[in-house]
Amino acid sequence: MPDRLNVGAIGLGRMGRVYAANLAQRVPHARLVAVADQKAGLAESFAREFGVARFYESHHDLLGDPDVHAVAVITSTSTHKEMIVDAARAGKAVFCEKPIALALDDAIEILRVVEETGAFLQMGFQRRFDAAYAGARRKVEEGVIGTPVVFTSISRDPCRPPLEFCDPKISGGLIADMGIHDFDVARMYMGEVKTVHAIGGALAYPEMKEVGDIDNAIIDMVFESGSLGVVQLSRNSVFGYDIRGEIWGTKGSIQIGYFRQTPILMMTREGITHDAVPYFFERFESAYLTQIQDFVDRVLNGQKPAITGADAVAAMRISLAATASFREQRPVDIH
Amino acid sequence: MPDRLNVGAIGLGRMGRVYAANLAQRVPHARLVAVADQKAGLAESFAREFGVARFYESHHDLLGDPDVHAVAVITSTSTHKEMIVDAARAGKAVFCEKPIALALDDAIEILRVVEETGAFLQMGFQRRFDAAYAGARRKVEEGVIGTPVVFTSISRDPCRPPLEFCDPKISGGLIADMGIHDFDVARMYMGEVKTVHAIGGALAYPEMKEVGDIDNAIIDMVFESGSLGVVQLSRNSVFGYDIRGEIWGTKGSIQIGYFRQTPILMMTREGITHDAVPYFFERFESAYLTQIQDFVDRVLNGQKPAITGADAVAAMRISLAATASFREQRPVDIH
Amino acid sequence: MPDRLNVGAIGLGRMGRVYAANLAQRVPHARLVAVADQKAGLAESFAREFGVARFYESHHDLLGDPDVHAVAVITSTSTHKEMIVDAARAGKAVFCEKPIALALDDAIEILRVVEETGAFLQMGFQRRFDAAYAGARRKVEEGVIGTPVVFTSISRDPCRPPLEFCDPKISGGLIADMGIHDFDVARMYMGEVKTVHAIGGALAYPEMKEVGDIDNAIIDMVFESGSLGVVQLSRNSVFGYDIRGEIWGTKGSIQIGYFRQTPILMMTREGITHDAVPYFFERFESAYLTQIQDFVDRVLNGQKPAITGADAVAAMRISLAATASFREQRPVDIH
Amino acid sequence: MPDRLNVGAIGLGRMGRVYAANLAQRVPHARLVAVADQKAGLAESFAREFGVARFYESHHDLLGDPDVHAVAVITSTSTHKEMIVDAARAGKAVFCEKPIALALDDAIEILRVVEETGAFLQMGFQRRFDAAYAGARRKVEEGVIGTPVVFTSISRDPCRPPLEFCDPKISGGLIADMGIHDFDVARMYMGEVKTVHAIGGALAYPEMKEVGDIDNAIIDMVFESGSLGVVQLSRNSVFGYDIRGEIWGTKGSIQIGYFRQTPILMMTREGITHDAVPYFFERFESAYLTQIQDFVDRVLNGQKPAITGADAVAAMRISLAATASFREQRPVDIH
Repeated sequence: MPDRLNVGAIGLGRMGRVYAANLAQRVPHARLVAVADQKAGLAESFAREFGVARFYESHHDLLGDPDVHAVAVITSTSTHKEMIVDAARAGKAVFCEKPIALALDDAIEILRVVEETGAFLQMGFQRRFDAAYAGARRKVEEGVIGTPVVFTSISRDPCRPPLEFCDPKISGGLIADMGIHDFDVARMYMGEVKTVHAIGGALAYPEMKEVGDIDNAIIDMVFESGSLGVVQLSRNSVFGYDIRGEIWGTKGSIQIGYFRQTPILMMTREGITHDAVPYFFERFESAYLTQIQDFVDRVLNGQKPAITGADAVAAMRISLAATASFREQRPVDIH
Repeated sequence: MPDRLNVGAIGLGRMGRVYAANLAQRVPHARLVAVADQKAGLAESFAREFGVARFYESHHDLLGDPDVHAVAVITSTSTHKEMIVDAARAGKAVFCEKPIALALDDAIEILRVVEETGAFLQMGFQRRFDAAYAGARRKVEEGVIGTPVVFTSISRDPCRPPLEFCDPKISGGLIADMGIHDFDVARMYMGEVKTVHAIGGALAYPEMKEVGDIDNAIIDMVFESGSLGVVQLSRNSVFGYDIRGEIWGTKGSIQIGYFRQTPILMMTREGITHDAVPYFFERFESAYLTQIQDFVDRVLNGQKPAITGADAVAAMRISLAATASFREQRPVDIH
Repeated sequence: MPDRLNVGAIGLGRMGRVYAANLAQRVPHARLVAVADQKAGLAESFAREFGVARFYESHHDLLGDPDVHAVAVITSTSTHKEMIVDAARAGKAVFCEKPIALALDDAIEILRVVEETGAFLQMGFQRRFDAAYAGARRKVEEGVIGTPVVFTSISRDPCRPPLEFCDPKISGGLIADMGIHDFDVARMYMGEVKTVHAIGGALAYPEMKEVGDIDNAIIDMVFESGSLGVVQLSRNSVFGYDIRGEIWGTKGSIQIGYFRQTPILMMTREGITHDAVPYFFERFESAYLTQIQDFVDRVLNGQKPAITGADAVAAMRISLAATASFREQRPVDIH
Repeated sequence: MPDRLNVGAIGLGRMGRVYAANLAQRVPHARLVAVADQKAGLAESFAREFGVARFYESHHDLLGDPDVHAVAVITSTSTHKEMIVDAARAGKAVFCEKPIALALDDAIEILRVVEETGAFLQMGFQRRFDAAYAGARRKVEEGVIGTPVVFTSISRDPCRPPLEFCDPKISGGLIADMGIHDFDVARMYMGEVKTVHAIGGALAYPEMKEVGDIDNAIIDMVFESGSLGVVQLSRNSVFGYDIRGEIWGTKGSIQIGYFRQTPILMMTREGITHDAVPYFFERFESAYLTQIQDFVDRVLNGQKPAITGADAVAAMRISLAATASFREQRPVDIH
């Protein structure tokens, strides 16, 4: 393989900067050669700070740069279709942060273009690259817990987003916005989902009713194998970021969990206390790095994507069915 | 109050012996004055071993003993109605191990007789007397976690019962047999349940299909308050007895859990390992004692029962609705 | 063996009541037939409350009771010699709470009389009957951690005793008063001690200097095998009762520890918090019961004492050497 | 401050490569402009791999490079004096990995030259930059645990070094080689040490006696404040890397500890098991990065060193006194 992959980063918002900085400084086989962001001056200032050779406001210009062999798309979801389609047609390998799209039609159109062009598209679901989730997968595959029969996943954010981002038309709603990570790892461990049923409510932040969203939900799942699953989502994990999973098998169980930010235990008259991981970036910092390294290495080595567009669509179908189940108060099959 | 309550124990099977031995030796304000079991010789041998004054084969004889002021009924569920009704009519205070009955009609008939006779009936749900579940209740009532919005409960047995006990006609099936404890504490923390939905399967022990039962289930619940709940049940907790709960509130969460049998940590090349609580009796040994002490003290002090027949019926209704939901693959309302 | 052992309890102070109540109610093969306490009326009121047949103010009277076959001596340490010697000469089997005596001469005189009379004397060191310490012993004996090479023991009380009990002339001082439990289990796991070195100070309660005692100490030990040990003692464990141990071996380690009183985890903005075991009785409640059961069973079965007077003297010698080491600021050999 | 500090790295052995790679890729304000290693070709290959402009075999050449403003010295301890003295005289800011020297005379000579030249010298003790140790320091300084009265530190390696590195003439022996980290943090939390006493033995690896070293040791300490400390060292932590600390205060305690490599819990018939941190680099990976960042930032900002040569000498004096105490079997004062 060539020494390094020349990558361009599109989108320099909060997560975009993380990806671009990782590509600039911490991914051995990547060379960040260009950045683009439609906000005036943002790409330039990032390029100066990190020593990136070229910067653009338009993603078209970046895609037209012959020195760019691959792109990382970290823009808002509503632009993913345009970015992926343009990049695929320009012959670039593409990494795109989840979710693939807001509407299923858009996602299917993306898959079509990717197939037509033969483009390399790897989707970002960083949880698969977390040491715990990946380690659990290896243990399951080794048969340590026998046949997995129940999957449990808990995802709880420390607070709700600003109300304007809670509008389900923008975010997809709690179940789609947060649950897609859980649905993705559900598929990874357990295979395809046959039926979902969801309940939920605006229980901690009544104001979320105004925008039509909820703050807590429980989704149960029957997999095609007959195995069972349950996902819990919440926006009011006031103590920190609560991400847990369990794969329950016929010969044992794997618990995935990690509450502590620092290995300090305070023991005082008030009790024995420790801190908690504050939020997703602290919890998954190294998973984000590992994920983009994986993309770079797969492109360089001519391997297949670790997480395909079809994977992203499959997780999306579960999200949409669960959202429908919640609204219609009945179990919904996945098609 | 009088110094001690004269109690008779009816039923000396496995759990019956535990209750009777507690009453004989470990409950300060109780005096075990009589025991009865229909199995020839069993009551007599118990009476000799524990120094109990009188023993009977027929519960009628025990109930006719004027020295007996209260009875503990620890017989098979199918006999509960006869025992409670006879004892109530005989003017005895009654403690009865859960579940109150197999059929709802029987349970309602029991409630009717209890009301008619004004009898004292306290139902046994030992989890409410466990230091963790009771302590969590106090914390919730103190408002430490704000408003509870999601309730989670996990109950997992280390193995399946013998197949002959799995027949749903005898046991009520997994959801009723195991879940009733979870449904009882659900009501304790969260209030009444409005709707349930259940999924399940014979996933670890395919032979359970033969008797029409399942070995794993997930039941989600919407409470009348709009809050949410989920119960997980399993028969294949191969590492030990897995009983956990969580009350998730607007200002924090209470986790209830206890895996370790002994406070020993083994650290070897194979990893860092500890043991697990093997089964329900080790986990709830002191809760069973506290529960029967509570019954004795309430009768002596003229207080109301801690857990009424109506409580038992309410938990039963949830069990039955969840069982129906599983069979009919749709959410079921509680009436 | 006879069905039950007739036991008399001498001393009904705080711990004496615990032992007597256990013997009265919770030890299957014991029959508490008599109690004695020199404080007027105390034995009588206890006897009435627990249904004990006979009560005495003088231990002589109890020892003269032909129906008493064994005695539990839970009096103040300064009277142990008189009690054990009198009971041994009266032909009673004796259980005596640690420490055996304050002065080494007294202890040796006790051993002499026990040997001369052939009396059964079992000393109380409840930690040996704790599930964790006993379980660790079995693991060590099974070879799970190879050869033990370092022993660590931490004993920390939640507060200092009243100053009048801190006077080393009465208590023996911190190292003897608290450390004797650690020295006893040190011998159990590691064999005899060759040399000790102690440091300490009145660091948390300066007022302890007035009575000549300290509140924190560290004692290191070299065993005759060449293995190493360290004991930490403290009176200012403000969060609860901190009792831990470790046996460090060539193939692994066993950690003994137990901080939590209830299996409840509180997760709020202030952090993730759990409670702590408050003090020794909560921590060792079942060990005290197991210990006196063991005494009763050994007497009934004609077995040897689990912990002999010689064991108590050996632990005492370590205490005295460690106390001398602290005072003289030099390592001291055990003779 | 200037944007970036031009650093040269001297020594590209195992730890040297880690430091140099961090400087090349992960320290925002550093620019690795030169590397040197006496082994032929090593500096060149590293320079090519990491895009470093200049490479040398002789540290003299690197120090003669006017573009180098600061150096990181990660060579064998026996060369530290030469490196630091040469760098100080060449006017470079110096970071040097601990220990400062093998012999006290050499260390004092280094301090003299640093003072004479006014050079910036920061010593590497990465534990001070670990989130747990640094966080505990802040908590202690905030008074959360009152006055610290007992310090405990455990350092245990998963295996012994090759015998040729165990020779105390090269390594300084177990107490100096491993204990210096513990002695350094002891000073950080508790102030200066007055007296030490050490015991130890070749208990797990008898072959270490041949080279005159030991594999387990316990060192107790009295601080000048009167507070107490104990350090445990071992080479046979077969399950992984065991690094723990405790600061025990009048109002509470801080426990520092971290056993788990991944947040996965395996629950099978064999028990509940998790993994362990394998060794120092996994445990302290981010501390090493934070430490060299701190050096760079302090030089750029004109601040004082975080850990001075005098700190390194103070830790060394404790090591030497403890080693002497072990050999002479008596407490030794620090001068």
